[in-house]
Order: sequence, then C-alpha cells, then structure tokens
Amino acid sequence: MSQTISAPSDMSPAEPEPRPVVVMVLYPGFTLLDLVGPHAALHAVMEVRLVARTLDPVVSDSGVAMQPTHTFADVPAGCDVLFVPGGAGTAEAIADHATVDYLARTGADARYVTSVCSGSLVLGAAGLLKGYRAGCHWSALELLASVGAEPVAERVVVDRNRMTGGGVTAGLDFGLTLLAQMVGEDTARLTQLMMEYDPEPPFDSGSPATATPELVGAVRAMVQPVNAATIAALAGASRRGR
Amino acid sequence: MSQTISAPSDMSPAEPEPRPVVVMVLYPGFTLLDLVGPHAALHAVMEVRLVARTLDPVVSDSGVAMQPTHTFADVPAGCDVLFVPGGAGTAEAIADHATVDYLARTGADARYVTSVCSGSLVLGAAGLLKGYRAGCHWSALELLASVGAEPVAERVVVDRNRMTGGGVTAGLDFGLTLLAQMVGEDTARLTQLMMEYDPEPPFDSGSPATATPELVGAVRAMVQPVNAATIAALAGASRRGR
Repeated sequence: MSQTISAPSDMSPAEPEPRPVVVMVLYPGFTLLDLVGPHAALHAVMEVRLVARTLDPVVSDSGVAMQPTHTFADVPAGCDVLFVPGGAGTAEAIADHATVDYLARTGADARYVTSVCSGSLVLGAAGLLKGYRAGCHWSALELLASVGAEPVAERVVVDRNRMTGGGVTAGLDFGLTLLAQMVGEDTARLTQLMMEYDPEPPFDSGSPATATPELVGAVRAMVQPVNAATIAALAGASRRGR
Repeated sequence: MSQTISAPSDMSPAEPEPRPVVVMVLYPGFTLLDLVGPHAALHAVMEVRLVARTLDPVVSDSGVAMQPTHTFADVPAGCDVLFVPGGAGTAEAIADHATVDYLARTGADARYVTSVCSGSLVLGAAGLLKGYRAGCHWSALELLASVGAEPVAERVVVDRNRMTGGGVTAGLDFGLTLLAQMVGEDTARLTQLMMEYDPEPPFDSGSPATATPELVGAVRAMVQPVNAATIAALAGASRRGR
C-alpha cells in the first residue's frame, strides 16, 4: 500500500518546500529491486526522475522493463540525490560514455551521490568515489579499491555526502536512512510502518558471514563472469582518464 | 546483482524439469515493491508471466509503469503459482470483472494461490480465500473477514496451498518461503545470499506493535479512503455472487 505522505512534524505546514529531486539512472541490465527498494522509501515525499540514454523502456537483468521519464539530454540539470542501482549490466554501464559522463557532470554538484549494490562501481567509474568509504554487493566489494574508494562491508555506508548501500535488499535500509537524513526521522519511521518493514527472513543466509561456505562459493562462481567484465570495463574507464 | 540460478542440489542435472510458471496479475494502482520483492526471489528459477487486461503499461501507485507480458485473454491457461500484489488500486481491481473472473478461473486449479499486502482482498473478492487463514497489510487486515477468511497478523501465512504475505516488504519473506517450499531450501538460501537479504532497518517502526501510537494513527488515517473504497468494492463483489 502506498500513499502520498505529507509529514506533519518534519515540514512546515505554512510554506511547504519544493520536493527534493531524486535522479535514478537506468541502464540495460540494472537490478530491478536495487532501484525499487529506495524508490518505495522515497517517492512519496520526493520527486523521482528515471533517467536513461533514451526514452525506450530499459530492460533490467530479470527481464522486466522500466520506462524512463527523462533522457540524459532533456532532464533538467541538477538534483538533490543522484542514485545508481547495480546489476548484471554494470560493466556495460561503465563502458557507456554517455552514462558515465552524465554521472560525472550531475554528481559534481548533487547534494547526495548514492548507490545500491554494484551501482557504486558505476559511480566510481565516473570518478565520484575517489577517497571515499563505500559499500557494494559483498561479492564485488573488493573491486571498489580500483576506483580509489575504501571498501566497507556495511549495509549503508555514509561518508560526507556519499551514501552507498550493500547488495540488492540493502536498498530498503539505504532508502530509509537517506529519508531520515534529508526529511526527518518521523517521516522515515512513518514510511517504514507504511511499508511494513519488519523483516523476518525465513533463513539466516543473507550475508557471507552467515551463509555456508558452499553457498558463498556458489555465488562467487555465478558472479565471476560479471565481475571479470566489470574489472575490464573499469580498466577501460581508467584509461579514458576517470 | 541478479543471475540465472541453476540449483545443483535441488534439481536433477540429468533431466531438468520445466520451470514452474508464476502468473503475477497487474492492475492499475498496484504497489510496485509488493510485486518486485517476490519477483526478485522467484524469477531466476521460475518462468514469470506479468498478466493484465491489455498489453498497455500498467501504472503502479507510485507512478512507475510496468509492461505486461500477456493479457488475461492470451496467457496460456493454468499456472503453478497465481500471485496478486496489493496497492492503492485494490478497490478498482475488485470492481473489475475481468480481473476477478480471471483470478477465480485461474486460482481454481493453481498449485499455489498467493498474494502480498492487500492483494489478499482481491483474491478474497474472487472467492479464493473462503475458510482460509490469510495475511494482509496490517492496516487492512480486518477486511479479510468480509471475504470469509480468517485474518492472521503474520509476515507469511500458509494454509494448505494458500500463501499470503503481510504488507509490502513482507514480499521478500514470502518469496523466499515459497521458493523453499517449491524448489528447495538450498536454492532459497542461495537466493537470499545473492539478494544480500540480511536486513538492518535503521528504526524499529515496521509494525503497529513497535511503531508509536501516533504513527499508527497517522497511517490508519492515510489509508482510510482506500479501505473505505475497498469495503464498498467488496460489498459489490459479494452482491455479484462471489
């Protein structure tokens, strides 16, 4: 259930401020849930723009397409939050000059530069995480070093105006944390209640610290081709001078 | 990060069985995350069909549209899992004869009849929860009694082949529970690790038991118009003989 939320205690009733603008960047092969978790947390009190190369539907790595609202060329300049999801298409996003150039340009003066999952590697390819602590999907965390970031194995990593989440479902924790910081804790708690975010995972297998070594090895093997492609793409971006 | 998963220990390598078919029903005003959580848990090992009245993009209650893959008329008959998300458009879905008739027809011989959030009220309007224990978003839970179901305030409610989740984010717990039951616990644990589902909500405000009375009251007030419309729609469905 989802509603437009007007937060009584966090915003002035007399003179409502304009809604903060969130730019979420879409690219082929992004992971749908990386984006939809934060979107669910933020959309009621912020204006979310889904921005891509063209207005064609962008196919996620689970095959479901999402319709952009703006292109890199026609979206108004500037935003309060720049956000990049991760996904199996990370390498292609990093190799795409239009995507990386847009991120570098927009991230330079965004209030918050953010990501979930391997989206941090795309931010890194745009030169936006040099000297920052950052998070990533656990299976690609160490790749952050190659973009000059300090890998941190936490669910939500905050360093100055960079806020980067862990893998996939970390987007929920990320979204509520960002909401609290930007709009207020009351609104974040209200949103958590509306989303009934009171998790009860049926198993204790959500991190490499709790899953069996066999499953950790299986996931590492499954993501190996994606990571190899990402490493190659990051090397290419580095040669281009990012 | 998302991958096609072939689960070594749960499926026969010699003769792979056909992938179970999941039908996810879209309607205007569904909640995106209600659907995307279970989709993230299931899509790698199941064939997911996104089914709606027409092939036009279906606009969710957060404004993001999703592209159906099939219409009620052209989707192959039968499925292993019938799934309905909740959303602010629940009342309209219940009032829509095409949607309710499709659910009643398909639910009659689906292996599993399932929902997240207020999707259980749509299942109920199709006569599919009479005499079953069922879950719902906490703020609409009591409405289940009017479709002959027993409301249960749990995150995932299983009663014979009915599996119904609580609100919005309960879809993650629901999806992994269904995956374990249908495919095996190893695959569910692998998927949990891939989704890095090791939640750390920044606040303890995800259920009416832990949120402040003020916030519980605020959400109840916000959903009141949606619930009133749903009650009216359920009365109409009841008069039509469901």
